[in-house]
Amino acid sequence: MKHHFSHGHRLDLKHGRIDLTHGAGGRATAQLVAEVFAPAFDNAWLAQGNDQAIMPPVAGRIAMSTDCHVVAPLFFPGGDIGTLAVNGTVNDLAVGGAQPLYLSAGFILEEGLPFETLVRVVGSMAQAARDAGVQIVAGDTKVVERGKADGLFITTAGVGVVPPGIELDGANAQPGDAVLVSGYLAEHGLAVLSQRDDLGFDSCIVSDCAALHGLTAQMLEACPSLRLMRDPTRGGLGNTLNEICHQAGVGIRIREESLPIRPAVRAVCEFYGLDPLYIANEGKLIAVCAMTDAPALVDAMRAHPLGRDAAQIGEITDDPHGFVRMQTSFGGERLVDWLNGEVLPRIC
Amino acid sequence: MKHHFSHGHRLDLKHGRIDLTHGAGGRATAQLVAEVFAPAFDNAWLAQGNDQAIMPPVAGRIAMSTDCHVVAPLFFPGGDIGTLAVNGTVNDLAVGGAQPLYLSAGFILEEGLPFETLVRVVGSMAQAARDAGVQIVAGDTKVVERGKADGLFITTAGVGVVPPGIELDGANAQPGDAVLVSGYLAEHGLAVLSQRDDLGFDSCIVSDCAALHGLTAQMLEACPSLRLMRDPTRGGLGNTLNEICHQAGVGIRIREESLPIRPAVRAVCEFYGLDPLYIANEGKLIAVCAMTDAPALVDAMRAHPLGRDAAQIGEITDDPHGFVRMQTSFGGERLVDWLNGEVLPRIC
Repeated sequence: MKHHFSHGHRLDLKHGRIDLTHGAGGRATAQLVAEVFAPAFDNAWLAQGNDQAIMPPVAGRIAMSTDCHVVAPLFFPGGDIGTLAVNGTVNDLAVGGAQPLYLSAGFILEEGLPFETLVRVVGSMAQAARDAGVQIVAGDTKVVERGKADGLFITTAGVGVVPPGIELDGANAQPGDAVLVSGYLAEHGLAVLSQRDDLGFDSCIVSDCAALHGLTAQMLEACPSLRLMRDPTRGGLGNTLNEICHQAGVGIRIREESLPIRPAVRAVCEFYGLDPLYIANEGKLIAVCAMTDAPALVDAMRAHPLGRDAAQIGEITDDPHGFVRMQTSFGGERLVDWLNGEVLPRIC
Repeated sequence: MKHHFSHGHRLDLKHGRIDLTHGAGGRATAQLVAEVFAPAFDNAWLAQGNDQAIMPPVAGRIAMSTDCHVVAPLFFPGGDIGTLAVNGTVNDLAVGGAQPLYLSAGFILEEGLPFETLVRVVGSMAQAARDAGVQIVAGDTKVVERGKADGLFITTAGVGVVPPGIELDGANAQPGDAVLVSGYLAEHGLAVLSQRDDLGFDSCIVSDCAALHGLTAQMLEACPSLRLMRDPTRGGLGNTLNEICHQAGVGIRIREESLPIRPAVRAVCEFYGLDPLYIANEGKLIAVCAMTDAPALVDAMRAHPLGRDAAQIGEITDDPHGFVRMQTSFGGERLVDWLNGEVLPRIC
């Protein structure tokens, strides 16, 4: 945050709206930072108030990741764009075996955005950051004219530290390895979809949006030789498994009956003709480990609240085509291709 | 970059356009990354292809910064949104005394954006990163529907390392210190303005967009006890000086006749009723040092191509009001307030 100065009347956070002055870098920007961002994200690094935050040295390799968030609508059952922006970046660090430490947050605001919306989202980010034990140390705010953005976009970047000995990589997967998933699939995408004007529906489906670094730490303790973890967000399980195959030069075989999918999710997907394999998750991970490590790793995952429904869903195969194949519940086999086209736009 | 896979026909980078599939996280996203981002940003960390990049340990404090870029139009004399996105974040790190190391880049694209535009911007980013000696190690791409964004927004975040002994902070400024600026003011803002449909004009004014870490390193070598540096971007010199006053609890007095402003800039500002003190710079910095260090520091700045026109423009004063005052060329005095309102929207 480059500014941290308030002057004159306080912002009317109940009825006021963002205007172009809030992105100009002058008094109004400073006031927005002082009255909205700084109190919510309150930490010593952000409070430095220089053009950058400077944090103590860290012992270990540096992990870095970024995610843009353009989810529509901004609020959905189980979270909002703010929780998503924090947890999404925390998870990208966590699945690399990193301990997430610091986030930056860049806000692109549309002129006319109610302060109330921004305050609510910023509150969610602050809460998610507290829950995840990370600090939002740097930020920026730009405002574009009405009609040049859609309410609010947030881009977070994150920095973490990777403890010695941890060597996770998509390329590590070997034929014979076990493929695990940490819980029920496809809930985030459907929770967002349920709120869409054009395709809204009533359901009990809630986004699984959550920070996974606690689970990943527990997994690495139980299984230090873990090959890799990935979080199957956009593109879902199906696409992420294809990415692993491509990266490691292997194939994957999964069993449909092993996939943790709730009946409500299955029903909505059938009704709308959606494949749960390609629906985004925001609080789930895929892990690959040696087959002999799998039972202990599943136990360790189930011992964590966010891994309670962990399951082994298949194994890595030796396949020169790099195909993901699924044994269907009816005894047949189906190819699980890369996601083609656009299943659900602006899901995260 | 989460994806790095191309399949089937290559993208038609001459005539093709971004569609929603390029943001879906599936095959089309992977192809966009493989054919546009990966070849341009080519480096070992990005090539890891996991959900995060993992870099070697660094020895020193960690600096972090972020900037959203929404400049309109995307291209202007002296640069484009891509050069701005890289140099802006590099400079935010550099003025903290950090050596910039790694950047992340988040792209929010509007459906219908010509690939040609994206390729040109990405090429500029790659070139700027090479020039600045930083690596773009992580990225994300989202696509929003036509009319929900304005072509292309880029949010960069950066990580750097601060060498031992460097302690720069806006709060360090002390009454009696010298205030220096590294060169001619207000060029970036006017260069962008000259391209606006509504207010376009012919001029020879070129954006000063540049990476300042080479200059800052040279300055720190010449003057290790430097108090602070800031880059006067949005809000310009006038606003940045007010920020320093607020942070350090001091005042500042500057001399109008010492301000490096080119005649062309002065002329355009007079014609449009703009105050060059509040126009954005993208390749300039303000430095504050002990008065006795000022001559040597100015010499060191002038020895660097980006500090050739460095000048001492004033000094820190003891002022309980925290005012920035300017001795005008006519012998009077004028208050230089915080920027009020919006001078030029979407200038960076």
